[in-house]
Amino acid sequence: MKEFFKVQTPDELYKKMDHFKPLSFEKVVIEDSLHRVLYEDIISPINLPEFQRSTVDGFALKAKDTYGASEKNPAFLRVSAEILMGQVSDIEVNEGEAVKVATGGMVPKGADAVQMVEYTECVDSYTLHVFKTISPLENVIQVGEDVKAGEKVLHKGHLIRPQDLGLMAGIGKTDVFVFLRPRVGIISSGDEIVPIEIAPAPGEVRDINRYTIVSMVKEAGGIPLFLGIGKDRFNDLKEKIELGLRESDIVVITGGSSVGTLDLTREVLQVFPGTEILAHGVSIRPGKPTLLADIDGKPFLGLPGHPVSAMVIFHFFGKPILKILSGLSREVIWHQIKVKARASRNIPSVPGREDYVRVKLEEKDGTLWAHPIFGKSGAISNLVHANGLIRIDINEEGLEQGEEAEVILL
Amino acid sequence: MKEFFKVQTPDELYKKMDHFKPLSFEKVVIEDSLHRVLYEDIISPINLPEFQRSTVDGFALKAKDTYGASEKNPAFLRVSAEILMGQVSDIEVNEGEAVKVATGGMVPKGADAVQMVEYTECVDSYTLHVFKTISPLENVIQVGEDVKAGEKVLHKGHLIRPQDLGLMAGIGKTDVFVFLRPRVGIISSGDEIVPIEIAPAPGEVRDINRYTIVSMVKEAGGIPLFLGIGKDRFNDLKEKIELGLRESDIVVITGGSSVGTLDLTREVLQVFPGTEILAHGVSIRPGKPTLLADIDGKPFLGLPGHPVSAMVIFHFFGKPILKILSGLSREVIWHQIKVKARASRNIPSVPGREDYVRVKLEEKDGTLWAHPIFGKSGAISNLVHANGLIRIDINEEGLEQGEEAEVILL
Repeated sequence: MKEFFKVQTPDELYKKMDHFKPLSFEKVVIEDSLHRVLYEDIISPINLPEFQRSTVDGFALKAKDTYGASEKNPAFLRVSAEILMGQVSDIEVNEGEAVKVATGGMVPKGADAVQMVEYTECVDSYTLHVFKTISPLENVIQVGEDVKAGEKVLHKGHLIRPQDLGLMAGIGKTDVFVFLRPRVGIISSGDEIVPIEIAPAPGEVRDINRYTIVSMVKEAGGIPLFLGIGKDRFNDLKEKIELGLRESDIVVITGGSSVGTLDLTREVLQVFPGTEILAHGVSIRPGKPTLLADIDGKPFLGLPGHPVSAMVIFHFFGKPILKILSGLSREVIWHQIKVKARASRNIPSVPGREDYVRVKLEEKDGTLWAHPIFGKSGAISNLVHANGLIRIDINEEGLEQGEEAEVILL
Repeated sequence: MKEFFKVQTPDELYKKMDHFKPLSFEKVVIEDSLHRVLYEDIISPINLPEFQRSTVDGFALKAKDTYGASEKNPAFLRVSAEILMGQVSDIEVNEGEAVKVATGGMVPKGADAVQMVEYTECVDSYTLHVFKTISPLENVIQVGEDVKAGEKVLHKGHLIRPQDLGLMAGIGKTDVFVFLRPRVGIISSGDEIVPIEIAPAPGEVRDINRYTIVSMVKEAGGIPLFLGIGKDRFNDLKEKIELGLRESDIVVITGGSSVGTLDLTREVLQVFPGTEILAHGVSIRPGKPTLLADIDGKPFLGLPGHPVSAMVIFHFFGKPILKILSGLSREVIWHQIKVKARASRNIPSVPGREDYVRVKLEEKDGTLWAHPIFGKSGAISNLVHANGLIRIDINEEGLEQGEEAEVILL
């Protein structure tokens, strides 16, 4: 029953994963909402600021009282009061008057501008010299100038950053509905894999992928659940995948997608109702043997066993799936700020697949240079020396020295 | 006792903070070491791999047995055995023999290359046709090719990324010494500031800075301790700073450095033995009123009260201090990968200070464009619409449309 699977392009895979659905939601206090994804639109119930505020330390006044004022010919005003921070004030500023205010303080009625203290001098406690003309509205932030009551300030699907938390705090939003974080079941597979605390016998290797993939899941905002090392036997693999499907929102297996165990993994998946294999094989290097399936609506991702390939494939396909499950809006999932660098020497590539070459990035005279680190994909030390992957397009035969290309930061 | 403080450049401040010392250390299991900073050099006790491994599925053989082989004129080899994954093998490959191996499997003695299964055909269970010549060492990763026993693989002061965890797992390192995470005492100050669950009276505003600074501390790997809202009174401020100095490794206050409360904060600091004011005022915008002090070896940072200014100043001065306390190596603290973008229109600036203008970044035809978002520094919504800050140098009068400059991602 060995079917033939056509190797697909990354874009074909992206299209196929687009039908996975975001998870459910929960309510959290805003202190706990950093890097979570909004499940609700945030609409401000109030104006920000709620009162006319000064942006400087100085004197609130009528701008026209300063017209023509200069160093040599200052305007004379009467200091009628001082508004202390946090104080309510019914004071009104009349023609020829000035009221002392601090940065962030209320600008009293009647005043339309605040002259900075640097351009004034108090001759005595009642008399102020103003040495510079000021225009109406200068150094004053109007009611609702920051946010208007009823304005949608943040939308569903937005990833909450520090400034977004600040805005929610500012409008008095103390708790918020956010999407659940995806739970990611992780299985390492392969008869040669042993837990790291065990000294491997000849022919065995320690389980590197558990630690890299768990870490990448954390970085992507998911909750990793390590399910153990699966041996290359039907029942062992089936039990671990079953547990993963029950306890998590996506199952990721490393090493279960290479030619050796390919048929076994696919055979096991057929046990579960509603399994559809979406892809086996992707035109990307390192990482060609990639398995993507939909098990009754839940994503299943088979990664290569080589640590570098597993990380690269998880970066390109695991992270977007986690973003979809997390409820992030489309534009955030598919559009990232890209960094570009120049190849420090020729980097060869074979056309017909997207090639990601490990590079060490270095800035020199304002230009970002990418030094390729060549090595076999099993060598984890190459990824440790690298801090980026430079992209060579599917139709290119490589990069020439000095040529610019997109870089993924590691 | 009002001294006069000269406004300093960011570089002058950076030089002054350079004398703060990293914190102590603790031992953690590697699962908990992601994004922590290494306190020890990591030296591998073993070779990686520990045995000669195949990088492909195929047949281990002597390369010279394939010389001259082609589609039309295959080499004939005798399949003497198969090495299963994880198995120890004493098999030796002799002239004219091939042994079946899987990706990652052991390459047996006598073999010096592995021919990919794609270039072979099993005529019967004992006879193999090889259709392509192969060179010695091809598709084989040698003992110690990834990491050599005794090699320093990671150094003290390194920030642990997923791939670094993978390498530690690979060499059997189960726990690791890391620097302690800095505890950051955070005080909001100002008589006008109220907790966010309270509806502010006229003249009062909600405490935005608590939430933005706590979040930024989390992002920088610190442990935030919010110490409350300090009123502009000597004793209240003194008690809160005292608590912060006792319970945390750095104290950050927002709003306590503007002209209104400047003298008060500095007066309070003089109470603590060993206080040295390192800077008051920095030539950066937004954020000029910045206070940096050393209180008996502990950093104290006074940020402006305006939310946008507080975030910008924490980004430029708070984060580097946290990195120093975290034990990060010098090159990581002061060198970051910089992103560059082009101004989508003219952006004016006043020379004499570094100007950071809020921008919305947008990629178009491979070019990153920065659209300036103008607005007063108190407007938190401007930072919500922005995803970057574009830098205008201290000597520049602005950026012209199309001009390229460095961008800090928000």
